[in-house]
Amino acid sequence: MGENAVRATFEALFALTDLRQILRETKPTHDLGTEQKKKVREILEKVKRSLDVIERDLNNCQEELSKLGKIVNGIEVREREELFINIHPIQPGGRLTPEAMKALIAYGDGYSTCDWCRKPFRLDKIKRPPIEEFHAELAEFLGMDQARVVPGARRGFQAVVSSLVERGDPVIVSSLAHYTEFLAVEDAGGIVKEVPLNEKNVITADAVARKIEEVKKETGRLPRLIMIDHFDYMLGNEHDVRGIAKVGREYGIPFLYNGAYTIGIMPVNGKEIGADFLVGSGHKSFASPAPSGIVATSNEWAEKIFRTTQMVGDVTRRKFGIKEVEMLGCTLMGANLIGMMASFPAVKERVKHWDEELKKANWLVNEFLKIEGNKVLSEMPRKHTLTKVDTTESFDKVARTHKRRGFFLSDELSARKIVGEFAGATRSWKLNTYGLTWKQVAYLAQAFKDIARKYGIKVLE
Amino acid sequence: MGENAVRATFEALFALTDLRQILRETKPTHDLGTEQKKKVREILEKVKRSLDVIERDLNNCQEELSKLGKIVNGIEVREREELFINIHPIQPGGRLTPEAMKALIAYGDGYSTCDWCRKPFRLDKIKRPPIEEFHAELAEFLGMDQARVVPGARRGFQAVVSSLVERGDPVIVSSLAHYTEFLAVEDAGGIVKEVPLNEKNVITADAVARKIEEVKKETGRLPRLIMIDHFDYMLGNEHDVRGIAKVGREYGIPFLYNGAYTIGIMPVNGKEIGADFLVGSGHKSFASPAPSGIVATSNEWAEKIFRTTQMVGDVTRRKFGIKEVEMLGCTLMGANLIGMMASFPAVKERVKHWDEELKKANWLVNEFLKIEGNKVLSEMPRKHTLTKVDTTESFDKVARTHKRRGFFLSDELSARKIVGEFAGATRSWKLNTYGLTWKQVAYLAQAFKDIARKYGIKVLE
Repeated sequence: MGENAVRATFEALFALTDLRQILRETKPTHDLGTEQKKKVREILEKVKRSLDVIERDLNNCQEELSKLGKIVNGIEVREREELFINIHPIQPGGRLTPEAMKALIAYGDGYSTCDWCRKPFRLDKIKRPPIEEFHAELAEFLGMDQARVVPGARRGFQAVVSSLVERGDPVIVSSLAHYTEFLAVEDAGGIVKEVPLNEKNVITADAVARKIEEVKKETGRLPRLIMIDHFDYMLGNEHDVRGIAKVGREYGIPFLYNGAYTIGIMPVNGKEIGADFLVGSGHKSFASPAPSGIVATSNEWAEKIFRTTQMVGDVTRRKFGIKEVEMLGCTLMGANLIGMMASFPAVKERVKHWDEELKKANWLVNEFLKIEGNKVLSEMPRKHTLTKVDTTESFDKVARTHKRRGFFLSDELSARKIVGEFAGATRSWKLNTYGLTWKQVAYLAQAFKDIARKYGIKVLE
Repeated sequence: MGENAVRATFEALFALTDLRQILRETKPTHDLGTEQKKKVREILEKVKRSLDVIERDLNNCQEELSKLGKIVNGIEVREREELFINIHPIQPGGRLTPEAMKALIAYGDGYSTCDWCRKPFRLDKIKRPPIEEFHAELAEFLGMDQARVVPGARRGFQAVVSSLVERGDPVIVSSLAHYTEFLAVEDAGGIVKEVPLNEKNVITADAVARKIEEVKKETGRLPRLIMIDHFDYMLGNEHDVRGIAKVGREYGIPFLYNGAYTIGIMPVNGKEIGADFLVGSGHKSFASPAPSGIVATSNEWAEKIFRTTQMVGDVTRRKFGIKEVEMLGCTLMGANLIGMMASFPAVKERVKHWDEELKKANWLVNEFLKIEGNKVLSEMPRKHTLTKVDTTESFDKVARTHKRRGFFLSDELSARKIVGEFAGATRSWKLNTYGLTWKQVAYLAQAFKDIARKYGIKVLE
């Protein structure tokens, strides 16, 4: 099976979408005219032909590669996840489950979540589909009292920071903080204060305590918030969130746990960590469409972060009592929310298998290190599937004299049906093995070794 | 054709999604094991059976209604747009085009838009798929210099208000302002000042000027922003945005045009209106999945609203130069953006046919008024497809003695395959005919009359 089956699958999906449109145009009686009947017959024939292609491909009958049309002018069909092993550093955790794909098919229309919206008219209170139940289960899953969905982790940072931080307030972040944390602080008028890394590129509790003292000395006041990534986006290193939470409590400074790289792929319990706020990303780690994210907190902090509107119209005296200011009322309507909900059972299951994901990541990294000159810049052994590697003394040596420069590596990888590396980079770059099967991981290791050998780089056996 | 065809279509779409998952698990070689081959064969058989059901239904062969499973536990399949005429006030403009549905199928995975992200690493600069081009065309389509996509119109209000409004600043809004405008102002620490409606429930330029004078007198300063809906969400009345923009210019107060109910369904040109900011909604009026929205402005204001980050890390000296603070960097990644892009050609075409939509809306309303006691609360003739009606003297009279109370009307409508009314409401409620065919509008009018007659309400012929 291969490309023909993939393309035929998309063709069948798209043809059925065209059929769906005819059903929409002729509802509710569905009395089709002659033209419409003809169109339906053509669509059914098209799907049948696609099924034939899939079947022949399954039986390994070679045939010419079919050509796949565009969705509309300029927008190609994305077949990346069907055809390639994707080692992109930030994409694997957000790859959809089949359930989420079905949710997108069924709930794509704009306000699809609002069919059964009843008093008190707020997204997280809707009972059909079971959005209210999902919110309660999500909070429980995260070991927090309350949870909300937001359009991306960044909107979670924004909600918390905007609630706590006033102009000029210092906020503690990591020296490996994601840029969206910077922006959330800047938008609120605060100032980021970075905690230095230790020699292992890790943020320790001691370093946070020292930074707090430093800020206190410099500005005469305590930081308003500590915001630290459990695993950072640069190296995928683990930072001491439990120790940091403790330091926060000692100083009376709330702690925001940035779980963009953890929530949805490994077990995370906010209470056990001691976090005041958890922020997660749907499209990064929760097998959900973008933008989607999570902000969760304790009942104590919920009053502040999820405060309801107090504004009163001066003419009409209108009030919109139950709407939450930082959420801007309803947050993540439509397909994105239902996608998260549809993936949730699989997500709850997959976090239990994080150990296995780490085994695969460590195995891959060890194989990768058998190529002479290859280095790993992330901490070892790997505690995350995202890893930064350095190939300055291996692949980059080839790149220096290759006419395609660093793109030679991309060419070699994509010829082996591997994508997601940073195109052209042969010094330090990142890869992520999350969600690959053992067979795929083995294939990946073999591909790296084959490329090395092809260019005369030694490979240990 | 009917329910069986709809269900069989979903079944086929879902079965092909399961096939897609097998292709993902077996990539890149697609060497299927015996079990997997068996599964693929079962899927192909399932799709074929579905095609048979559709074909038989097309030939009007009656058969028992098939049962459709859930997507996952608790999440039913949403068949509303395939089976029912949907008169929901806010849903019709956000109903997806088939192109957008295909985009969701192909680009559902979390970070699907980021495959070809290259320097300078910002969503609106990505060339493949043509996101940069879309942004330029979108600005042109709206008659503005620059446009960005955001997760919903509310995030557009937030970006503008957060950039302009300081604590205590007054902001002019309509007495029919949407609650998200209130929340955006509240979040920034501002205070809403409502403009009263005239006797026709319309916001005039004079009324805005009077309110500005009042605010000036009361607070000693000018409002920071005027934010008015072109058509409001309550009555679907048109407000004098051109006149209001002119008043804004005279006072030197910027004007935000709220196009949640216009951009994407009727022609809107910001320059011609004289607006400083346009805000639109993807899921309300742009045939796009939720959450999605648009904020557009002039080059002059872009410097402020789309200002890039100035924050510098105190330890690392890091700067994230090109990322825009109010956008929080990249805004609307993934399926939602590609959905908007895929719908864009159809949207550009459909705004040209707004007149025809108004003809249908006015025809429907006129038929509706033939039912004795029925009233229209919105301005007449209708300039929008969203209309507020009053049936206190017709359907509500029935409800008063009916054992199902106001739900009798919902029951009667849904028995006729019509949904989207506010369930249980028989006094004042809203309906929207946008996007219905003439045949569907005629069906709808007939249904209302049939229900009236059934309960002894007079209907003029």
